[in-house]
Amino acid sequence: MSATTGTGDTPGTPIIDLNADLGESFGVWRLGDDEALLGVVTSANVACGFHAGDPLIMRRTCEAAVERGVAIGAQVSYRDLAGFGRREMDVAPEELTADVLYQLAALDGVARAAGGRVSYVKPHGALYNRAARDPAQAAAVLAAVAAYDRSLPVLTLPGSAVERAAPPYGITVVGECFADRAYTPEGGLVSRRLPGAVIEDAGQVAARSVRMAAEGLVTAADGSEVPVAARSICVHGDTPGAVRLARAVRDALEAAGVRVEAFAT
Amino acid sequence: MSATTGTGDTPGTPIIDLNADLGESFGVWRLGDDEALLGVVTSANVACGFHAGDPLIMRRTCEAAVERGVAIGAQVSYRDLAGFGRREMDVAPEELTADVLYQLAALDGVARAAGGRVSYVKPHGALYNRAARDPAQAAAVLAAVAAYDRSLPVLTLPGSAVERAAPPYGITVVGECFADRAYTPEGGLVSRRLPGAVIEDAGQVAARSVRMAAEGLVTAADGSEVPVAARSICVHGDTPGAVRLARAVRDALEAAGVRVEAFAT
Amino acid sequence: MSATTGTGDTPGTPIIDLNADLGESFGVWRLGDDEALLGVVTSANVACGFHAGDPLIMRRTCEAAVERGVAIGAQVSYRDLAGFGRREMDVAPEELTADVLYQLAALDGVARAAGGRVSYVKPHGALYNRAARDPAQAAAVLAAVAAYDRSLPVLTLPGSAVERAAPPYGITVVGECFADRAYTPEGGLVSRRLPGAVIEDAGQVAARSVRMAAEGLVTAADGSEVPVAARSICVHGDTPGAVRLARAVRDALEAAGVRVEAFAT
Amino acid sequence: MSATTGTGDTPGTPIIDLNADLGESFGVWRLGDDEALLGVVTSANVACGFHAGDPLIMRRTCEAAVERGVAIGAQVSYRDLAGFGRREMDVAPEELTADVLYQLAALDGVARAAGGRVSYVKPHGALYNRAARDPAQAAAVLAAVAAYDRSLPVLTLPGSAVERAAPPYGITVVGECFADRAYTPEGGLVSRRLPGAVIEDAGQVAARSVRMAAEGLVTAADGSEVPVAARSICVHGDTPGAVRLARAVRDALEAAGVRVEAFAT
Repeated sequence: MSATTGTGDTPGTPIIDLNADLGESFGVWRLGDDEALLGVVTSANVACGFHAGDPLIMRRTCEAAVERGVAIGAQVSYRDLAGFGRREMDVAPEELTADVLYQLAALDGVARAAGGRVSYVKPHGALYNRAARDPAQAAAVLAAVAAYDRSLPVLTLPGSAVERAAPPYGITVVGECFADRAYTPEGGLVSRRLPGAVIEDAGQVAARSVRMAAEGLVTAADGSEVPVAARSICVHGDTPGAVRLARAVRDALEAAGVRVEAFAT
Repeated sequence: MSATTGTGDTPGTPIIDLNADLGESFGVWRLGDDEALLGVVTSANVACGFHAGDPLIMRRTCEAAVERGVAIGAQVSYRDLAGFGRREMDVAPEELTADVLYQLAALDGVARAAGGRVSYVKPHGALYNRAARDPAQAAAVLAAVAAYDRSLPVLTLPGSAVERAAPPYGITVVGECFADRAYTPEGGLVSRRLPGAVIEDAGQVAARSVRMAAEGLVTAADGSEVPVAARSICVHGDTPGAVRLARAVRDALEAAGVRVEAFAT
Repeated sequence: MSATTGTGDTPGTPIIDLNADLGESFGVWRLGDDEALLGVVTSANVACGFHAGDPLIMRRTCEAAVERGVAIGAQVSYRDLAGFGRREMDVAPEELTADVLYQLAALDGVARAAGGRVSYVKPHGALYNRAARDPAQAAAVLAAVAAYDRSLPVLTLPGSAVERAAPPYGITVVGECFADRAYTPEGGLVSRRLPGAVIEDAGQVAARSVRMAAEGLVTAADGSEVPVAARSICVHGDTPGAVRLARAVRDALEAAGVRVEAFAT
Repeated sequence: MSATTGTGDTPGTPIIDLNADLGESFGVWRLGDDEALLGVVTSANVACGFHAGDPLIMRRTCEAAVERGVAIGAQVSYRDLAGFGRREMDVAPEELTADVLYQLAALDGVARAAGGRVSYVKPHGALYNRAARDPAQAAAVLAAVAAYDRSLPVLTLPGSAVERAAPPYGITVVGECFADRAYTPEGGLVSRRLPGAVIEDAGQVAARSVRMAAEGLVTAADGSEVPVAARSICVHGDTPGAVRLARAVRDALEAAGVRVEAFAT
């Protein structure tokens, strides 16, 4: 995943992936503008039914992703529809492994029926955050991926417990960064509870994205320069403004000569 | 599936499969004696999470089935944990297809992680009954199997709507019979609401099983002889008595020279 | 519930209630414009958690209804979040009674904590339709209401199985009508599958509402005049257009001198 | 709750309550021997549907408790059927308050329909443990009880965060102790992960129960004497052995002249 040039490009052409959460509707309820997002991102983190996404929505989302040439990732979660997977849960490792394996297999089957396949895994919400710092839950997620298909990369925060726990499972970890979030001098994210944690100016977000993709650097909240080892930028699509911001990021990347391309196919 | 002799047997050796529902526990709750049943049956209809069977139970059930050499079938159901999938539901065909595809893919992934695979599909409870007479739900189930893997056979009642709807999907249908149920002269099952619908005498059940397997015949409630086109006999395991009955059926079949063997591997 | 004049009005002033479904969000997912609807209707059918409405949404909906002086009804449903309670289910009567009792009690407790109370019951979606024609499910719903509080009226279609089954339970049934639906000469609703079943012209819907409330009559699809024994008109709020239509109905009713008032408090 | 004598008893007659979890079946799945337990305990912690207990099971459990004269408590839980409420969850306080209020109101309505009522609240499993040490979740539970009925006592561990947070809510807290658990010199429970944490000898458990009830003392693991401020002893009923142990505790208490009586009615 360290390749920074694609075939047919000028040597040195930087490459970046844009990923976003999709398929997060459920039953009669709609969430996000999947149609618009599919025109912007290169990787779709598709909900697998545990925090959102009933089977029919999963199927339609996969069909749309296949049609648009967007890579499909399994956005695995705690079993928590009422909380949208945003509440940390003390799930025992073997239960968590089975839950993740179940979701991953279900989405992959649905994706294959749509002519595609799951090509990576990204934990959702509270599981993403918990697995980023809890070695037991990180290992449980990795064990599920290894049990299903060791060749599937896992998208995570650089330096996370998932990254540290991955080597014995033989699983590739892919780092992602956040263009609209302020960074600490250590390379972490400034807590959302602090002022300035989220950057809302579209021009600024787009400029940061370009710098992250092209130079692997971001200016931290204290003004220092921080390296960002990311092959993917996470964007959002839950509001009309978010989709416009994602579009601005993609346009700026392409204008700067960055190749926007999925990390896994 | 019309073969009645196995390789290496004397020509004419009858073959039958014994199938039962397994993995129908959920969370802290236990149901059935899976361990004992796995020593009796050749095919395990494993619950897929919609009426029973959380992912960890699915995984353990698949591991045990693989270890015992028992074929794994996807026991797909309506989404109804509170009603154990026993309540008919007016699910729209495209929703039902997606629900079945999801369950089938999930169990197959879990089974493969356990070193096995799903080798057939059997709808559960109310879905089994509804699909046996409702062409729309029958077609919805078949469409899911076809979308996932057209080579997987579907276990159903001979003459059911599933059997009639199968040809255009290119799916093989396997008939099953019930050794402990009284039959009508037309070859259907006597309603459970009528007296004598369930046969409880072990000797009688075992003898009927042998006749069904060896001669393809059963004596109906009115004394007439009825043909039974079944490659599998369904047995139960939800009570200690049921497991003993299943054991008696298998012993009688083997004593009569019937080869007890899964129809799919 | 046959009273057509309120105290303080000119004798003969017609009275009508406007009811709509509210609180049908769940977790992170939003549905309908509850805020706008609460400014239009006099009775809110609040979801109780089985088809929509988690406890926090129920609480906020009740608080808003109390603040606006809108009557709270328990919108009880089958247990079917994935299908939004729109799929008929063969629930056994004693299970259905317990399910309805549970929902009714839960919402009443939440409403009382908000300073209000449940003052009527209206089955939702598939349960509404099934109970309107199935005496067993109708009786099961009525048994639940009788077990909780016999004084609570049940909102239903005039002539439904609920109405016919109510007398032995000592429960008052309140009839409702639909201003935007075409009627058959027998007083039933024209099936949604037929052309012209739904009337979309706001002026026409408003005029029909006034005639239903003031004269108790509606012009059926064949031009004949049909009596409508309704104390409440059902309006919708799931789209911006629906809320505007509901507003138009209320304005027309008030302009015509109809008193718009809840049937239960 | 500090009363230690009942009317009509010799002054100084000690009084104790025996509480156990009941109604923890769900749908087709059974758990525990409720019938036997109802002959032993004076207070039944009845599951409210979030970790166990569907509405029909709740209704039958309440009917049986009313018939046997056993007090009914609301055993409120996190929303976690798959984990039986045993997994800690980071539920936001206002969500938790609404969840507890919903469960409490639902059970109370069901209990009243059975001729009884909820007379106390006991959080279940992970919520019990979390609320015992987390002031935010403790307050959230208390806020729900206060919103529903300030006169309902809450059963908790003496010294817990629930006890500390209760005064501003005006809620009475009742302490409970565990006859089969080893105590630390500080009056806490020895962790289940340590050897000797659970006492299995029936005679020893019964003798400790009598001493806790009659003298308010227990011998800690290090041999020191520790005061136990409990008005109730928690017993279990999930295995045949557990029910026998509970019976032995009750017999020993009565033989020692302790009055076994519910703390709330």
